[in-house]
Amino acid sequence: MTTTSEALALIQRGTDEILVLKELEEKLTSGKPLRIKLGFDPTAPDIHLGHTVIINKLKHFQDLGHQVIFLIGDFTGMIGDPSGKNITRQPLSREQVLANAQTYQQQVFKILDPEKTQVMFNSEWMDQLTPADIIRIASHYTVARMLEREDFNKRYKNGQSIAIHEFLYPLVQGYDSVALKADVELGGTDQKFNLLVGRELQKHYGQTPQIAITMPLLVGLDGVKKMSKSLDNYVGIDEPPEEMFGKLMSVSDELMWMYIDLLSFEPSTTINKWKKEVTDGLNPRDVKIRFAKEIITRFHDHQSAEKAQQTFIERFQKGAIPESMTEVTLTAPQEGYSIANLLKDAGLVTSTSDALRMIKQGAVKIDGDKVTDRQLRLPAGTQHVYQVGKRRFARVLIN
Amino acid sequence: MTTTSEALALIQRGTDEILVLKELEEKLTSGKPLRIKLGFDPTAPDIHLGHTVIINKLKHFQDLGHQVIFLIGDFTGMIGDPSGKNITRQPLSREQVLANAQTYQQQVFKILDPEKTQVMFNSEWMDQLTPADIIRIASHYTVARMLEREDFNKRYKNGQSIAIHEFLYPLVQGYDSVALKADVELGGTDQKFNLLVGRELQKHYGQTPQIAITMPLLVGLDGVKKMSKSLDNYVGIDEPPEEMFGKLMSVSDELMWMYIDLLSFEPSTTINKWKKEVTDGLNPRDVKIRFAKEIITRFHDHQSAEKAQQTFIERFQKGAIPESMTEVTLTAPQEGYSIANLLKDAGLVTSTSDALRMIKQGAVKIDGDKVTDRQLRLPAGTQHVYQVGKRRFARVLIN
Repeated sequence: MTTTSEALALIQRGTDEILVLKELEEKLTSGKPLRIKLGFDPTAPDIHLGHTVIINKLKHFQDLGHQVIFLIGDFTGMIGDPSGKNITRQPLSREQVLANAQTYQQQVFKILDPEKTQVMFNSEWMDQLTPADIIRIASHYTVARMLEREDFNKRYKNGQSIAIHEFLYPLVQGYDSVALKADVELGGTDQKFNLLVGRELQKHYGQTPQIAITMPLLVGLDGVKKMSKSLDNYVGIDEPPEEMFGKLMSVSDELMWMYIDLLSFEPSTTINKWKKEVTDGLNPRDVKIRFAKEIITRFHDHQSAEKAQQTFIERFQKGAIPESMTEVTLTAPQEGYSIANLLKDAGLVTSTSDALRMIKQGAVKIDGDKVTDRQLRLPAGTQHVYQVGKRRFARVLIN
Repeated sequence: MTTTSEALALIQRGTDEILVLKELEEKLTSGKPLRIKLGFDPTAPDIHLGHTVIINKLKHFQDLGHQVIFLIGDFTGMIGDPSGKNITRQPLSREQVLANAQTYQQQVFKILDPEKTQVMFNSEWMDQLTPADIIRIASHYTVARMLEREDFNKRYKNGQSIAIHEFLYPLVQGYDSVALKADVELGGTDQKFNLLVGRELQKHYGQTPQIAITMPLLVGLDGVKKMSKSLDNYVGIDEPPEEMFGKLMSVSDELMWMYIDLLSFEPSTTINKWKKEVTDGLNPRDVKIRFAKEIITRFHDHQSAEKAQQTFIERFQKGAIPESMTEVTLTAPQEGYSIANLLKDAGLVTSTSDALRMIKQGAVKIDGDKVTDRQLRLPAGTQHVYQVGKRRFARVLIN
């Protein structure tokens, strides 16, 4: 049996905010299984480690015996963005939504126990509402409070248009909590406002308001921007083991601890032990290896993790890449950095013609891989180890 | 056959604004019967002359052969004001709405031809919409533009709350125009914003935008505030002929011309002739009589009008009420003006005890009726002729 304070400690780990902590304590003390809601848009089915931060939190609740609900927001997904201003939000067909939901579940069930997870679609209750119901829901929130939401506020002040239906989306999300009788809703820090709308609506519908738990957004491999596919600073949970290993080994020591906090399932006692080991002289690289193997084991298996480590050691450690090297940050022009300019600006060659000659000789490597394309362009948001000849190395972040 | 310019002149008469006049001209020139929309809330079924200003405009269109649609806004009426802040807007039952609609029709059909009038209820299409439809409708208008509406703007700036569903009501009204494929929508000047929302929505639904025609709000009998039942400065269309006659004869000469412009069905040529007659020396009272009889004939019949005139003449003209007298404007305390104070403040008696003595003697009259109640209180917004003895008269407006 877990005590309430142990449960609370596990839930609190890595969170950004819990609103309201005291209410959560009371609910946990009651001993009743709680209903934990996490909503996802069914638009982009590829999950990366950034998404898993919240899913992991859902797993904590599941491990503690609570009922977790994975909610697919298909109602709004099937409407898309009706203003038509944002071309990335086209309405999805029922088939697309179901296909995306399927992909989601496959990925999510690498973390959650499918037997104990309730998967729901909000169209189930949203499609049943009448126009009068929608108007009643909308009556429970004010324009002024909606305009307090940070992004709305900014757009309103800057004279950028906000279509009125955008005010309805947070209310729909809030009404989902009413329909689900959620005790707790999880979301990223950017979801805080919407989670609080849910609290508000539940009060109007005579329910005990849900507890809103926000999780920090995971920083990408560059250590600067939020992890996202479009910034190419992510680790997809479907990526091959070797890719994952290489990417996770490339992060800075500081970022490593942040990742471990948000992504590792090791108990806090173990993590504290690791920290002490490093303080006492252990190479952080060895902790990074443990962590990378844990993640690969989760999304592939133990054997793949072992193999990925082997491959990595062969390529990097035997390839004599030094443990410490010059670190350079460069700002890319819009079209990306040409490899020749990059090598010059990073101080690895004296001129671009020098760079091109070295490439021709096969003496230039990126993360241990030989560069053959003299026209290669490196995009912003990437960080790699560049090598010229046997001894010149630099870790270059392009922003 | 009426020419387009004759039709246009009739339609333009008394209007406050026509948006856009050029479009109206084009539609009239096409020769096709237009669809003319006028919406009413099914909340307060008692119609007074103020309401008929717009109904008269509807009649002009009907007389010109266009299809007029009398729309009962039962959809929102049956929701009421879900914010519960305004206790006067309780949701109405289906039965109440139908009963109110019935009363409306009885009254309205004293002006409009029932055979040629389409009576509709907006629940017919509103109840068919899905939540997704509502969201789509809401996507066609922006928060910033909604906040431009004068009352919203004032409330927002003053920190008074606006519930989000209040933003949906103008959109529902606008969508009614889409559902009805309205060519023209009529409304009071306070409806201009909502009428323009209809134009906007119709464009989004691929329709030619309706023409918005606003009519001025009729000033009440006091000549100051808008005619309204709660201000007791109105002429109800169900009032007895004698009441109507007396009330209409009590208005100032200036107000009389405004009423004639907005309420008389006499052709402009006739009204211009009347004006010339007055300029040439005719007592405006005689024009007032013609006008009062027209109104009474409309809502009762010709015989009643003749009889009301007789009664009026007997009471007033034979009662030796002078045609000109002192005009006094007084400001009433909240609980109303006591008759004794009023007579004193109007200079008709020297003291309140003098006033009370005169009342006891039966020497005080209001509009020719003897006053017996010494405690009588006169409310703000009323105007009457007060008489003390045979020779002291004053027309007193209380505001």
